[in-house]
Amino acid sequence: MLRKILVLGAGKSTSYLIDYFLDKSESENLSITIGDLNPENISKSIHQHSNCNVIHLDIFKDDDRKKAVKAAHIVVSMLPARFHIKVAEDCITYSKHLVTASYVSDEIKKLDDSAKAKELVFMNEIGLDPGIDHMSAMEVIDRIREKGGKMLLFESFTGGLVAPESDDNLWNYKFTWNPRNVVVAGQGGTAKFIQEGTYKYIPYHRLFKRTEFLDIDGYGKFEAYANRDSLWYREAYGLQNVLTLYRGTMRRVGFSKAWNMFVQLGMTDDNYTIENSQGMSYREFVNLFLPYSPTDSVELKLRHYLKIDQDDIMWGKLLELDLFNSEKAITLKNATPAQGLQEILERSWTLKTDEKDMIVMYHKFGYELDGIKKQIDANMVVIGETKTHTAMAKTVGLPVAIATLQILNKNITTPGVQIPILKEVYAPILKELNTFGINFKEYQVPYLGYNPDSVAS
Amino acid sequence: MLRKILVLGAGKSTSYLIDYFLDKSESENLSITIGDLNPENISKSIHQHSNCNVIHLDIFKDDDRKKAVKAAHIVVSMLPARFHIKVAEDCITYSKHLVTASYVSDEIKKLDDSAKAKELVFMNEIGLDPGIDHMSAMEVIDRIREKGGKMLLFESFTGGLVAPESDDNLWNYKFTWNPRNVVVAGQGGTAKFIQEGTYKYIPYHRLFKRTEFLDIDGYGKFEAYANRDSLWYREAYGLQNVLTLYRGTMRRVGFSKAWNMFVQLGMTDDNYTIENSQGMSYREFVNLFLPYSPTDSVELKLRHYLKIDQDDIMWGKLLELDLFNSEKAITLKNATPAQGLQEILERSWTLKTDEKDMIVMYHKFGYELDGIKKQIDANMVVIGETKTHTAMAKTVGLPVAIATLQILNKNITTPGVQIPILKEVYAPILKELNTFGINFKEYQVPYLGYNPDSVAS
Repeated sequence: MLRKILVLGAGKSTSYLIDYFLDKSESENLSITIGDLNPENISKSIHQHSNCNVIHLDIFKDDDRKKAVKAAHIVVSMLPARFHIKVAEDCITYSKHLVTASYVSDEIKKLDDSAKAKELVFMNEIGLDPGIDHMSAMEVIDRIREKGGKMLLFESFTGGLVAPESDDNLWNYKFTWNPRNVVVAGQGGTAKFIQEGTYKYIPYHRLFKRTEFLDIDGYGKFEAYANRDSLWYREAYGLQNVLTLYRGTMRRVGFSKAWNMFVQLGMTDDNYTIENSQGMSYREFVNLFLPYSPTDSVELKLRHYLKIDQDDIMWGKLLELDLFNSEKAITLKNATPAQGLQEILERSWTLKTDEKDMIVMYHKFGYELDGIKKQIDANMVVIGETKTHTAMAKTVGLPVAIATLQILNKNITTPGVQIPILKEVYAPILKELNTFGINFKEYQVPYLGYNPDSVAS
Repeated sequence: MLRKILVLGAGKSTSYLIDYFLDKSESENLSITIGDLNPENISKSIHQHSNCNVIHLDIFKDDDRKKAVKAAHIVVSMLPARFHIKVAEDCITYSKHLVTASYVSDEIKKLDDSAKAKELVFMNEIGLDPGIDHMSAMEVIDRIREKGGKMLLFESFTGGLVAPESDDNLWNYKFTWNPRNVVVAGQGGTAKFIQEGTYKYIPYHRLFKRTEFLDIDGYGKFEAYANRDSLWYREAYGLQNVLTLYRGTMRRVGFSKAWNMFVQLGMTDDNYTIENSQGMSYREFVNLFLPYSPTDSVELKLRHYLKIDQDDIMWGKLLELDLFNSEKAITLKNATPAQGLQEILERSWTLKTDEKDMIVMYHKFGYELDGIKKQIDANMVVIGETKTHTAMAKTVGLPVAIATLQILNKNITTPGVQIPILKEVYAPILKELNTFGINFKEYQVPYLGYNPDSVAS
């Protein structure tokens, strides 16, 4: 029997996802329908594939959306997270499985009973982060527990970065995904985590100063700043009694200290608009955040305000962005500071056609086994292939695609709204990801608890 | 004819207000009704005053409230600002004038047409700040304009402080009003103002570092940090073309730099709760905001984190609050950091029975007249008399009371929802405030524009 997969949204994270389905379409007897608002942006080879049907679909047109869902056996929603709910409700109505890479929203969670009643798998958070992080972490945690070990520490870090071969700026950073998320990262709530049994809180304006360092064999040193949401993982992973629980975002060393300059200036603020932003020079933009002086230059005021020494590379990082240029101007109308900053950064940090991205992930698992404290460190590095076949698209899209096929093939059957933390789910998916070069290197290391010597004050 | 005044709410800002009405009740033929939820808290002498009637009134009981409003000639609402609207609607219904010391809310503003149609004066923002600030500023601005002067600069600062004779701590500060407002001051939005024609923005975490200094003859040096709302005054005072517009809050010198320690730690955050706050020692509370260390003391970690030298008085300020005490504990359940900090501060910063408060206000008016740039500085100092008759109660309550009588006596007749910026309003009120010792000293000073030399970086 032909199995029909409906893919909603064919944005930049779907290259590998669609390739996977098309490659398997003969052997697995798949018929793929791709519904998108702009089908003309989808490549010709996909349009012309014999097992693929590309349709124009506006998911806000209820009849069209319902018709498409009804015709499928399983639905993959790669739409922005806020649009999932309508699709999910249709999936309940027409008894279809659903796969998304997004965080489980409260409204999606409410469909759990209905999904269970109809024996439907509603798999969420099955991209990279969230996704591969859940699966790779639970694989190790379950293994430790199966041996009788008791978890003491869990730390987990992910970063979307520029690949070493394309890394040619002082920030060692380029945008490889949604720039906006990078500019406002860390806002919207204090970072909360647990270190050695004590709650710890870091306010936004200190976040990029409290970094932790990580080494990856063959790739050198990275740093990480805390995510907001570490405590959430206690429940999700069953880590209620763990002494240390910390989630973070990885960057190349020095990025956070430099980024903190923008935070300190107030340039990442997204809560008010600058009336006269359009046509404002970069230099004028910077001056908005500095004290007035009838005599001193913007440069001197900024150096003084942020205490940047003459020989500090931080200064070079700002110059590289052309931040004091009085000719280059912001084009956005009524931009928030964050939007203005984003526009400036995009001029410097956009990947060129031949440049590649890189995904890094790093886990630490501290545990006690037979009275001995131990630790496993595990890390993953994925380098992008081309501008469309990025490491991000690969690590987000493949787990979604593999999960979809596993559900169709009834290897994943546990019903309900869920994230990939069950062995039934993660085991086959991790195994297949491995064949695509997505895998973790594990190291048995000494357990030091939360080691403050690796933490910058 | 007996004129009936209804006063709603007899909280701590109403001592002078009620005294004023009672003192004038014979000569002005006034009958005062005080409606409060807890009339038993009102002093016996007021209860027994022959021209005063104290009633129990729950303003959420519509019938009781309407009945009280209907019986009055004018209503003074000293309720919390969010409760004004019901009273204001009743005032429209029964055609009564209304006086409040609160900011004009959007819902109150919507009653403007109805108030005008019925020729009712709805006077708001007629306390201290807002109130005396509006009146004293407009008095000078109008005077400059009447002479043909053109406004160039307006800066205005207010502070509620401890009186010099009761000032005995290193912070030179005690709570004289709502402590919560002090702890969360500056939050909820970036400070925005104009300096020499340029917009300037200060994010919260920099606010207490960008202070400006002010001298008051006989009282020494003060400092001020920026308020959020400076730009609003362009429209209100007709200052659209002014080069510099800045509003700030006054403190004794050194307060802001020390307060910034709490901001930097994240201790003023009011957006999340600490699950285990109840019974948490002050020392544990402080440690929530510091990096983990298996060896270093909370003291050393804090000194290092905030870069406090051994000989820095900042350290003494923290010790004075007993911040590292492991015996004293927070009593609040699920406190936000701000609530926890407030509890700690209240133990040190509460005015004792015999201690006095102080109100300071400082205006700068820069202008051009006959081609010459000039400046007037004006300042006001009011010292409290007793614990109930505070400078705050005096400067908030008297303008409200005087305005009420002026409206009754038809000296203030311009109808509609308004703030006291018309000469008809401010002239008689400022004149009478003067007889109570509330007045400004004016100085003609050189116009320097916005002078950066008086600004700390």
